[in-house]
Amino acid sequence: MRNWLLPEYIEDILPAEALHIETMRRRIIDLLLLHGYQQVFPPLLEYEESLLTGSGSDMSLQMFKVIDQLSGRMMGLRADMTPQVARIDAHLLNCDGITRLCYANSVLHTVPISLTQTREPLQIGAELYGHGGMESDIEIQQLMLACLAIAGLNQVHLDLGHVAVFRGIIKNANISSEMEAELFTVLQAKDISALKEICRKLKQSTREALLLLPELYGGMEILREAKKRLPSQNEILSAIDQLEWISEELQPIVETVAFDLADLRGYHYHTGMVFAAYARGCSNAIALGGRYDEIGKAFGRARPATGFSMDLRELSRLVEQKSYPKGISAPYNKKDKELNSIIARLRQEGHIVIIELPGQSEIALNCDRRLVMHNGTWNVEQIEFIEN
Amino acid sequence: MRNWLLPEYIEDILPAEALHIETMRRRIIDLLLLHGYQQVFPPLLEYEESLLTGSGSDMSLQMFKVIDQLSGRMMGLRADMTPQVARIDAHLLNCDGITRLCYANSVLHTVPISLTQTREPLQIGAELYGHGGMESDIEIQQLMLACLAIAGLNQVHLDLGHVAVFRGIIKNANISSEMEAELFTVLQAKDISALKEICRKLKQSTREALLLLPELYGGMEILREAKKRLPSQNEILSAIDQLEWISEELQPIVETVAFDLADLRGYHYHTGMVFAAYARGCSNAIALGGRYDEIGKAFGRARPATGFSMDLRELSRLVEQKSYPKGISAPYNKKDKELNSIIARLRQEGHIVIIELPGQSEIALNCDRRLVMHNGTWNVEQIEFIEN
Repeated sequence: MRNWLLPEYIEDILPAEALHIETMRRRIIDLLLLHGYQQVFPPLLEYEESLLTGSGSDMSLQMFKVIDQLSGRMMGLRADMTPQVARIDAHLLNCDGITRLCYANSVLHTVPISLTQTREPLQIGAELYGHGGMESDIEIQQLMLACLAIAGLNQVHLDLGHVAVFRGIIKNANISSEMEAELFTVLQAKDISALKEICRKLKQSTREALLLLPELYGGMEILREAKKRLPSQNEILSAIDQLEWISEELQPIVETVAFDLADLRGYHYHTGMVFAAYARGCSNAIALGGRYDEIGKAFGRARPATGFSMDLRELSRLVEQKSYPKGISAPYNKKDKELNSIIARLRQEGHIVIIELPGQSEIALNCDRRLVMHNGTWNVEQIEFIEN
Repeated sequence: MRNWLLPEYIEDILPAEALHIETMRRRIIDLLLLHGYQQVFPPLLEYEESLLTGSGSDMSLQMFKVIDQLSGRMMGLRADMTPQVARIDAHLLNCDGITRLCYANSVLHTVPISLTQTREPLQIGAELYGHGGMESDIEIQQLMLACLAIAGLNQVHLDLGHVAVFRGIIKNANISSEMEAELFTVLQAKDISALKEICRKLKQSTREALLLLPELYGGMEILREAKKRLPSQNEILSAIDQLEWISEELQPIVETVAFDLADLRGYHYHTGMVFAAYARGCSNAIALGGRYDEIGKAFGRARPATGFSMDLRELSRLVEQKSYPKGISAPYNKKDKELNSIIARLRQEGHIVIIELPGQSEIALNCDRRLVMHNGTWNVEQIEFIEN
């Protein structure tokens, strides 16, 4: 077995793509900073319990674990940065007003989430704490779209859902937590026959509502349909109103919007509106988010919370990548002050200048120009490449 | 035990420090890019063997290990990015000429290297492959100093060593590898009495040379001393010449230079000159590096190699941190196009603008100015804070 083979779904990022990702990362972070989102760097690992808080057991299987040699306790390698950022808001910053935080760093998954995804996503995102109104959901979704746009992705389809619809339907239907988990699983898989089977034991109104959910995917018309045919409970009606309102706000800046009332992604910690952005050429959501008001509770402070995140590696595949910029090759002469000050100036102007080291057989591969002396002055000239 | 306590030597980086580190990181990476060093992102984990290649068993104890659920093989979390970058040079880029690479990312240690260090250093560094001459050592050391300077650290002390001195002394002295390891350990610890004990079994010239090594720490005079008193073997003399030459080149840009001929840090993989930069207020080296020509061999291609790296977390403690920039608070009004275009313009000019969300009780903590309407136009004015 060769030593340099990497594990499956683990990859190096080589210079051209690395520069592309670095550029996108800076643009997005700068945009978030200018909107008042302060960057934090949570640690790569911490105690297992603190990483699993709020996110439920789904995350546990996703998470690599190691023993802390200093305490003997189990630590996890973060599989998601959201719980860490919520911990920072709840505990460290401990501010009563609105807190806006952002982050960009690697997370690790024991197995890839889908067959096309990496086990080391480069998660970048923003979270807004301390505001429960729809205005913060809108801010977060607009910001997500602005981040995608600044990274070069302008045509985005948005899927909107709301966990209060499903919660509303099962609320007074005398459903055990086992059955709730089963319903959740079959709805996620859109497994209609299994859904029918489970629903047989339920009262008619609940059954009809649950069986209707998977059909409630589409445009504005499905909101009207949902209002007409789902139980007219306050929380369901209010969720539908919220979806209607937010989609009107976002319509001008996205290509298409659809509603998916059976979308229960992150159901275990989401508490309100959820959303996912899709781009052409990628079957997975390119950015995800939603409201998760309860997550801070375990850290001593339940705060309204909403946020989004995306994987920069995935995003970089969807946005056309520029070729790596070529440099200027310069001769090696430590004693020539004029030459060295020209090199320093060229670099200040943003040119890559690569010094030819003594004994080097050929001009650096990554240069298309060189510094040469003509009639006593240094000039930058194009390198003529001779075709072999 | 509270869920939000972090493991020992593991820390969150909060906004003010995060911004400081982000700024330093960008400045250093930009400087390296302009010198022709291309950034790569090696993965956080890979198979254990490939991470340990070349670095020897020292690294194994430093490295967290997890089982790959997809292959059943053992993977390590990188404790150092240098072997990964060497793998990329040797295998992936596979270029015959000179390759310059740089990187910036977290590494993890099972236990802290010293009592003042983190278990999650933020390693940033540069490596130059394919050139065996002193000119590349100089390029790397000058670059390291330039990186420290651009991060705000101008007064640096440099320690220089050369593993060829120790290797030269023991070369023809009929020393077993066990004894070599013992000698290495006691010299690292500067344990003179143990050194004397081991040396008793050796022939006089070797013994005298080894006992002299721990004394050879200081300025130019110790190089003269070394030339006079160490065995006059070619490799030893050439190592001393190299040290003399490079210190002359670097003298103008560092505060002080000292030579340490007993410095065997990284002896298992270093093959030539080694160096360490120190700053006031920090007993650990703030940046480290050296030549390691053999490391690529295990990946199928031994290439001359030299490089440096440093920990951005440690560096950020030594450089004075600016306070987090204050923002402009702006009212929430999605419908007011003029207001929204002013907000967009202010952000384009680099101002942080934070929207006050409906229901928010007070102005965002991080603002010192606000957008207010006066006589029909929007103006930015200072916020008068009322002392409590």
